[in-house]
Amino acid sequence: MSGKNLQSVLAHIDADLKSSTGRLFDFLKIPSISTDPLYKEDCIMAADWLVRDLNQIGFNTSRRDTQGHPMVVGHAGSAGKHLLFYGHYDVQPIDPIEMWNKKPFEPYLAKGDLGDVICARGAADDKGQLMTFIEACRSWKTVHGRLPGKISVFFEGEEESSSPSLIPFMKKNAQELKADIALICDTGLFGDYTPGIVTSLRGVLKEELTITGPSKDLHSGMYGGASTNPARVLSKVLASLHDGKGYIKIPNFYDGVEEVSSKIKSQWEELNFDVKSFLGQVGLSQLAGEHGRTALEMIWARPTCEINGIWSGYTSDGFKTVLPSEASAKVSFRLVGKQNPILIQKNFRSFVRSMLPIDCSVQFRSHGQSTGTEMSIDNPVFEAARLALSDEWSNKAAFIGCGGSIPIAGYFKSILGMDALLIGFGRDNDAIHSPNEKYDLRSFHKGIRSWARILDKIYN
Amino acid sequence: MSGKNLQSVLAHIDADLKSSTGRLFDFLKIPSISTDPLYKEDCIMAADWLVRDLNQIGFNTSRRDTQGHPMVVGHAGSAGKHLLFYGHYDVQPIDPIEMWNKKPFEPYLAKGDLGDVICARGAADDKGQLMTFIEACRSWKTVHGRLPGKISVFFEGEEESSSPSLIPFMKKNAQELKADIALICDTGLFGDYTPGIVTSLRGVLKEELTITGPSKDLHSGMYGGASTNPARVLSKVLASLHDGKGYIKIPNFYDGVEEVSSKIKSQWEELNFDVKSFLGQVGLSQLAGEHGRTALEMIWARPTCEINGIWSGYTSDGFKTVLPSEASAKVSFRLVGKQNPILIQKNFRSFVRSMLPIDCSVQFRSHGQSTGTEMSIDNPVFEAARLALSDEWSNKAAFIGCGGSIPIAGYFKSILGMDALLIGFGRDNDAIHSPNEKYDLRSFHKGIRSWARILDKIYN
Repeated sequence: MSGKNLQSVLAHIDADLKSSTGRLFDFLKIPSISTDPLYKEDCIMAADWLVRDLNQIGFNTSRRDTQGHPMVVGHAGSAGKHLLFYGHYDVQPIDPIEMWNKKPFEPYLAKGDLGDVICARGAADDKGQLMTFIEACRSWKTVHGRLPGKISVFFEGEEESSSPSLIPFMKKNAQELKADIALICDTGLFGDYTPGIVTSLRGVLKEELTITGPSKDLHSGMYGGASTNPARVLSKVLASLHDGKGYIKIPNFYDGVEEVSSKIKSQWEELNFDVKSFLGQVGLSQLAGEHGRTALEMIWARPTCEINGIWSGYTSDGFKTVLPSEASAKVSFRLVGKQNPILIQKNFRSFVRSMLPIDCSVQFRSHGQSTGTEMSIDNPVFEAARLALSDEWSNKAAFIGCGGSIPIAGYFKSILGMDALLIGFGRDNDAIHSPNEKYDLRSFHKGIRSWARILDKIYN
Repeated sequence: MSGKNLQSVLAHIDADLKSSTGRLFDFLKIPSISTDPLYKEDCIMAADWLVRDLNQIGFNTSRRDTQGHPMVVGHAGSAGKHLLFYGHYDVQPIDPIEMWNKKPFEPYLAKGDLGDVICARGAADDKGQLMTFIEACRSWKTVHGRLPGKISVFFEGEEESSSPSLIPFMKKNAQELKADIALICDTGLFGDYTPGIVTSLRGVLKEELTITGPSKDLHSGMYGGASTNPARVLSKVLASLHDGKGYIKIPNFYDGVEEVSSKIKSQWEELNFDVKSFLGQVGLSQLAGEHGRTALEMIWARPTCEINGIWSGYTSDGFKTVLPSEASAKVSFRLVGKQNPILIQKNFRSFVRSMLPIDCSVQFRSHGQSTGTEMSIDNPVFEAARLALSDEWSNKAAFIGCGGSIPIAGYFKSILGMDALLIGFGRDNDAIHSPNEKYDLRSFHKGIRSWARILDKIYN
């Protein structure tokens, strides 16, 4: 039954692509910029647009107002696994407006490197991506008269402005939102012909430190050689964070870091990740991380400690022979597995303090922290999705990692206790957050087909 | 004969102090700011003022025009040692003008911590100081009808604007300017009751470096842990410049550094330099230089390597998890004895290059260099001046060092082959280069008396 059910849905998706694209265009025309209060009504309009559209497909959907922009929640079906699909209808601001080839909220098709592309703010992030799921549901409903199982949808309008209403809303409506698994369509393909399912996300710990020595800037003719120099002290501290093999020397830093399972490892090997081009496109030739680790381990599965900024003393044109009174740095850590950001913060700060000479003091400032997220891929939905994606794309899909953090995935885990299936069809050249954002028509089309295949694998 | 000759001159100086101060006031009224073209005529006026005044005391003086502001050169006498006195008639700009208590070119007397102070731009730097010598000559001439020996004077008007005409003028007029020794009155007392003669000046080498890694700033979620980070590389380089005992690790750096002679060392010990207050006034408690060296060695006789500025990555408010493409620093070296700045520059640059990983490159930019200057204190004029100063002040004078560089002293040595006697009566609180510049009336008065005693010791 599975095969026939699916084939008719896929055929409908192909036949309906023009209409699907037209609906996405309508959605893209609403300038739902969440950070700018000027567009508040447009955000409400985008939420209402979703409510109307979802109701037409059989979701019992409502707009749920918050202190910020509204949420949209809908429910359909009652049989089988309960899925919760998440996306966001808000978009990034459009400045610098003069860099756009055409008006950002008047969508159009243009030629891209892999066929036609849909051009508009939000085309990829996230309106185009979230519509892949809605269009898959629509075709299923059209062909079979009902959705394939128990599916809920959950959309927010504040993702591009730090989601202030998200956690309170999730906590308040936990009962309603809790499902067997969440689906998130806000990531990218692993390669142009290779989809991936993100199963691990790194957490992050962001620290700023300022080391102070003398009470004011000094003249190096007068005090040079006699006074402590905080820029020298800071350099020593920063240079001591890693050993000669790229491992991090903060005590107990690696507590909670787990090795990648052999199952995941072998999938990563099959990806034939092109390290040379990954490094080459930014002018590099050699991996600079922990010795003995592969590139994918370094960016997906290993913790890091990086200097993101340093400043001290005179930094303008010319020269001043000043001995600076202060030296500062911003340092961030990417965290994996069960690493505890609170403990690492404590150990990092002690480590720095232990290196200070008698006349220096240090002040720290936290810029936030989050833990890493690991999905339980034993849940059969992961394998089902992987097989479904492999059917649609030329190359087999893999469970991949994500070097950055996607907060919503962590919240689903920590607040609602469910894993998330992060599947997306974006490409690196989509220019999200930049002028001339686009989404490949191919991503949109194959994205819809991918979700239909995934729904089929899960429910049939 | 010496005693009586001198006593009558000193008596005249005391009796004439009001007139001397009046002449200095007239000189201070001329706003001879050399950096600002608006004051070009005033600089000429200040030069002419000096020519007239010096001619009255028996110097055969002329204004010598240059491409910039004019020089003033005068000659008197023919007997005994040939002295060349140097000073500068130009002054610093006056902004921020709103910070001045009164108009900067309307000199007045006010109360200071050690008696009256002369307030005006240039009161200390250098009009008041250069007039101490001229007034000493005037009193000598008045009392004895002639100057005590062969004395030349040499004033420039571009000291506060990098002296562009100085070296060409010195080279062109070397024959005329060459004397047995130069006298320079542009430095300070060692302590409020202790004069010093600067016999060593540190040179300086100023280097800027930029280390480049990836071709653009990267996202640390994407590349963190895999890409080389130039901020980390720079920290390692800067942290490697010194060993654990504060000594500089650049190969051959100490070539040409000589130990302070026991004669100088014992004089320095007699100064009872107050390390605690030297450090305490800038919030420090411990010497941070080469282990086993005294504070005065560190600031006067030892070379240094200091970081004057560092910058890399994101340095504004908030946080960006960027992996910077570049990291830069400004590093300066204070040089002593026969250290060769050209060789040190070469060795520093090789040292940095040797520490770079394969994907990093470095660019250097020179911000100038000069050698240290050591006076030959075997010249009996040094000892004569030291004894003369010791007669005038409560505490014995000492041969001291100067941590910074005073270019003119180096030029006298390198271009004219003569040592310079650097004697001055300024105090740390004179606010030179700042609003409300002042010169203690006591510095002016005892300064004039000091030069009279020095001339007496040299010629009688």
